[in-house]
This record gives sequence, C-alpha cells and structure tokens, in this order.
Amino acid sequence: MPESPIRKLVPYAEDAIKQGKTIYHLNIGQPDIKTPQVALDAVKNNTIEILEYSRSQGSDTYREKLANYYAKHEIDVTLDDIVVTTGASEALQFLFSSVMDPGDEVIISEPFYANYIAFSIATGIKVVPAVCNIDDNFALPTLSAFEKLITPKTKAILICNPGNPTGYLYSKAEINKLASIAIEHDLYLVADEVYREFVYDGHKHYSILQEKGVDEHAIIIDSVSKRYSMCGARVGCLVSKNKAVMETVLKFAQARLSPPTYAQIASEAALETPQSYFDDVIEEYVERRNTLISELQKIEGLKVAKPKGAFYCIVELPIKDSDHFAKWLLESFDVDGETVMVAPAAGFYSTPGVGSNQIRIAYVLKKESLIKAVNILKQALEVYKD
Amino acid sequence: MPESPIRKLVPYAEDAIKQGKTIYHLNIGQPDIKTPQVALDAVKNNTIEILEYSRSQGSDTYREKLANYYAKHEIDVTLDDIVVTTGASEALQFLFSSVMDPGDEVIISEPFYANYIAFSIATGIKVVPAVCNIDDNFALPTLSAFEKLITPKTKAILICNPGNPTGYLYSKAEINKLASIAIEHDLYLVADEVYREFVYDGHKHYSILQEKGVDEHAIIIDSVSKRYSMCGARVGCLVSKNKAVMETVLKFAQARLSPPTYAQIASEAALETPQSYFDDVIEEYVERRNTLISELQKIEGLKVAKPKGAFYCIVELPIKDSDHFAKWLLESFDVDGETVMVAPAAGFYSTPGVGSNQIRIAYVLKKESLIKAVNILKQALEVYKD
Repeated sequence: MPESPIRKLVPYAEDAIKQGKTIYHLNIGQPDIKTPQVALDAVKNNTIEILEYSRSQGSDTYREKLANYYAKHEIDVTLDDIVVTTGASEALQFLFSSVMDPGDEVIISEPFYANYIAFSIATGIKVVPAVCNIDDNFALPTLSAFEKLITPKTKAILICNPGNPTGYLYSKAEINKLASIAIEHDLYLVADEVYREFVYDGHKHYSILQEKGVDEHAIIIDSVSKRYSMCGARVGCLVSKNKAVMETVLKFAQARLSPPTYAQIASEAALETPQSYFDDVIEEYVERRNTLISELQKIEGLKVAKPKGAFYCIVELPIKDSDHFAKWLLESFDVDGETVMVAPAAGFYSTPGVGSNQIRIAYVLKKESLIKAVNILKQALEVYKD
Repeated sequence: MPESPIRKLVPYAEDAIKQGKTIYHLNIGQPDIKTPQVALDAVKNNTIEILEYSRSQGSDTYREKLANYYAKHEIDVTLDDIVVTTGASEALQFLFSSVMDPGDEVIISEPFYANYIAFSIATGIKVVPAVCNIDDNFALPTLSAFEKLITPKTKAILICNPGNPTGYLYSKAEINKLASIAIEHDLYLVADEVYREFVYDGHKHYSILQEKGVDEHAIIIDSVSKRYSMCGARVGCLVSKNKAVMETVLKFAQARLSPPTYAQIASEAALETPQSYFDDVIEEYVERRNTLISELQKIEGLKVAKPKGAFYCIVELPIKDSDHFAKWLLESFDVDGETVMVAPAAGFYSTPGVGSNQIRIAYVLKKESLIKAVNILKQALEVYKD
C-alpha cells in the first residue's frame, strides 16, 4: 500500500505551521461550502432511541429517493439497482472485489484519482493507464489507441466524469465510444460520477447509464461527499442494472453489516436540497475557476487546461520535480509568512516519470484566497531552483 | 464470497411475515437496549456547519478519550496506538490486509464469528480452525494441540473474547498461554474484544494488552456497536502498540479517507456513559441468560453451555441439519401464528460437517419473549422430523 504523495507532505505542512506560517490549501478536495441546512437539520432532529444496523444495501427509503434523484438526471434505476456504501471509497472497494480477480486488469484514463491505485493494489488488480495529455485538454485517446490496451485479462474501463484531477468532462460522443468498446469487448464500464453536478459553462453531464444498450456493463460509483459538501458523512453508493454484479456487491456489503445510520439520515434529507443551493455553488465555483485560471495564466512558462467540471485542474510548471517543489514551498518559502500547499501530480499517474512537472490545484478556497495563493506560487517560481 | 447462513434465511423470514406470522428473532446480535442518552444528545446538539472529513485515524479528541477508557480497563495505550475504523468490520479488513499476505494462515478458535471467514476470503487468507468443543464449554484446546496447527505460513491467532457465538470468556491463564505461543512462534495475537463489558457472574475480562511482554504481537479489534447499543454508528477501532503494524493500518485508513463524523461524535460522547447504565444492562443480560438457559434445559436431548459473557450461546439440538430446521421453523411451523428465527451454527465453523446439529441463540430479547420463543422451539422439536 503506497503512501499518497499528498499525505507525504503532511509532516512538512505541520512543521510549516509550527514555524508560524499560514498555508493556503490548494492540495485537497475538502470544500469550504456549507452543508445544506436540510441535511444538518435532519440529523439534529432525529428521533433515534436505539441506533440499530440499517439494511446492508442501505435503508429502503433512502434508496427509493435516490432512484428518484437519478430519474431527474435521466438515469432510469430502481432501489434494487443501488447498494449504499460507506463513501465512494467503499463503493470502489466493492467494485474491485466484485467484478475482478487478482491479476485482472482495469484500464483507467490517466491522470486519475490517486486512491484508485490504492484500492487496486489492495485487491491485486493491475491498473493499465489510458494516457491523456494536457496539450489535448485531457481528452480521451483515440479508439484505436484505447483498444490497443485491451488484453484477455482486461475486465473493466474506469473513468471519473467530471474528472478528478483534471476537471475534464466527457462528451456524449466519448461516452458513446467507451460504451461501444465495453460492449464489443465484454468489459465493465465504470464511471465515478461523484462530481455530476459540478459542470460549468452550460455543458451538461452525460452519464454512462443514460447510454442505451450498455445496462449489463455500466456501473456508477457515487457519493454525497462533494455534492452536498458532506465529506464526513461517508455515504456513497454503487449503481448497476447488472443483477449478477449487484448480488456479489451485496455479499460484500453484508460482510461489513451496514452503512452508517446518521449519515444516511443526512444523505436522505440532502436529496431535498433546493436547486438554488446548487445554482449558488456552481456560480461560486465558476468564479473561482475563472479567477484561478486567469491568475495562473499570468505566470510565465505555466500551462493549464481549462476544466469544464469538478473543482480541480492540472497545472504544468516550468520545473522538473513537483514533489520537491511542493516540499520546498512548505519548508523554505513564504511571502510575508504565507505559503501554499499543492498536490504533486505524479501520484495521479501510474506511467513512470509522467506528471512530475505537474501539480493539481483544488479551487475550494474563496476568490481572494485563490488570488493570494497564485501570487505566492508566482513569486515562488521566480526564485525556485530545481 | 459465501453468503452467510443467517442471510440465506432472510427470504424465508420475509415469506413467514407475509403469511402473517410473528417471528421471535433469536438469530441476530441487534440488542434492543436503548443507546445511552449522552450519545444520542451529542448528535442532536452538534453544531457542524460543514460536515468535513475527519482525520483518517479518527479525531484526536476521540482517540485521546478512548486511550483514557482503555486505561480504566488496565490497558496502557496512547492515542497513537489507536486507528478509528468504520465498525469492527473495517478493523478486521485492515487487520487481514495489514499483517497477512494472500496465502498466509490465521488460526481462529472455532466456532467463530462468521464474518471472519468473509474477510479472510476477501483477502486470500486461509483460516485454520482451533476446534473447541461444546462438551468442554468451548475452552481453548491444549497447548500441544494448538501448536500442531502452526505452520511456516501462520501469521496470527485470532480469538473473540468474550466469544461470539459461544459466550466463552477466556481466563487469564488461557490468555497467558496464547501470549506465550505468540511470542515463541513470532505470531500476532489478535483479540476481538467488542463484548468486553458483557461479562457475568463476577468474572473479570482480561485483555491481551494487559498481558506483559506481548506488546509487539497484540492487536485489539474493538467497536462501540454492542457496548453502547450503537450498531448503526459504524465506529470501531484497531489498537496495537506495534508501530510498524499501525503504520500499515494507517495507510489503509488513508485510502478510504476517514471514518464517519457524526458517529464519532456519538462514540466520543458515549464514553461518558455512567456506570449505572452498564450495571443495568449487565443485570438485564444475566437475567435473560439465566431465563434462556433454564428454559432450554427443560427440553429433552438438548445441550447448552452456560455462557460467561457476550449475549450468545451455542445450543446442540437432537436434529441432524440445523440449516433445514431453521428454514422449516419459518416455512412450516408456528404456535398460534408465532415462530422463531435461529442462526444455524454450521456457518460458525470452517471444519466440514461440524456444528450442523447446533444453532446460535442471541439473548437480545426481553425475558417474556425468550420464554415464549423457547417454548415454541420445544414444541417444534417435538414434531420436527429431519
């Protein structure tokens, strides 16, 4: 089990704080957005007297309402197609354990969420990267390049849409292409859609389960963490219309007994969150993104793709080793006692050497903080020596 | 991933309910005891505005207070020796993933908690049973019998103390014996101590971490589920003074980000539960146990060991196949519209054929219900034909 490149930085951040430095956290996806009041209130007003196990697949009322939520997003599922999990993390664990055996391969569009690697290692699955490029705005490789990656051991294709760490939003045409590959080669098509609502500039999210004819192949990984700024709830789900997959997933769910009860209460209530909440949040993120990108573009030698979704972007810097740079920012640099913490991007790649001049920035801070943070980054790059 | 023998019965129970039958649930460990008010209130009075990730190892305040709790039980640990998990289930997953590799062996005193098998299968670990016998009240096998089970692939010994499904309480002498085996053969000694407080008749629980000289070997699996009747919280922990083990466990904890926040609030507050709560609960369980055992002993041809802890007992019946019997109780038997659901014991054994004439009874119902339930069992055995 490798340590994540972000976690490795934590001791340096702790030391920086001890030195009295203020840190702008561009490194993590912990939004500063308030959790919807309706969710917070539901927990405060709960009437539980015995905090019992819920059903292993999640409470019926929550799954019933979740199915309605998906219907609004043109995803036609019933409560039987949903197993509630302890965060998307557990949904990913169930996925790797249920549809693959040790030694099997999963193709993942790269760069990808670092914990995909952690869960694949834990279950003995080999990650085969489908390398996407910053110069191409991280679009999917061509069909032929993609098909070259498929071997007899390939069991699944996994994408994150919109993407962490790229902010890339897959087009309907791309989902269509992936679905046809999945059907032709009899593979599972898995989409981590936890950022479904975070889509900008009038674009629309297109789910793999909106695609026709792919029901037996499609598996959605989902979570309330980012949607409702409820990372601490630890509620996610796995959604599929493939009955055999869901039966196996349920067995893993039963072995760990049940997902957390209080968090399910919060998650069920969160489904009543008014649209105005999302409108405000999206407006806020678009402003933050625009601010971030325009500030970053003022820095010479820097390359950044404009993300269409989620709240991350990959930034290529005029440096050699972003691992070293990130440590140096915490250890040896500050502007008036302030510095920034960034996520070195190498951890988002499994291809050796790739991404070592890149960082991931999460724009989960207020606009003013983002401006200050990028200014610090700019000054740092002026004096930093590899 | 095998389906648990209890889960297999669920459709039969659902059918029985559809037929209008009332079921006495002797099959599951879901206590009917009220959760401590202090824990319920802490959640209702929480002031969270952004439900953030907690630390992967659990919040510092909770782990600090947990260390104090252990100190009261003569277990000398600090917050650094504790990783908070999503139930004991996750602690077991971390255990199997952290201290063993696929193909390694773990010796488990049998009969054992059925999910040990589920987690071992999920991680490719081989369970080697140390068979304990109902005629012996499920005492540990002799030292020499135990040592015969050890091979070069053995990595750990796992006990549940007090035991699910036996209610067996390990004596200080037995823990001492296990510790010496662990030290001599360089094995981990793991104790699932989730029923620590449920010890009867003036006996005292003796933890593996009270034993001297075994710090590098001992690992405790723990949970708030039964202690505070908070099964739905999903909070447990893994405790060890072995730094290398804890470092590996932390990496698995980091990969799944954090344990649930609301449940940690409840669990931290639950540590303030007054002793009177436990006194009442223990008194209640002792009464239930005494009632259950004396009622069971009225049934001819039945064998039951008197449990000294937890709230389960294994009962040997004058039948051949308790799987079939349990189904038959739900499908084809009732007394005035009432029947009982029991847990067939074969699922608690890995040794083929053993336990098929046994059931596990959880005495988590009120006295009057237990009397009625055992009476139904008695009448059932009078007419049941294998």
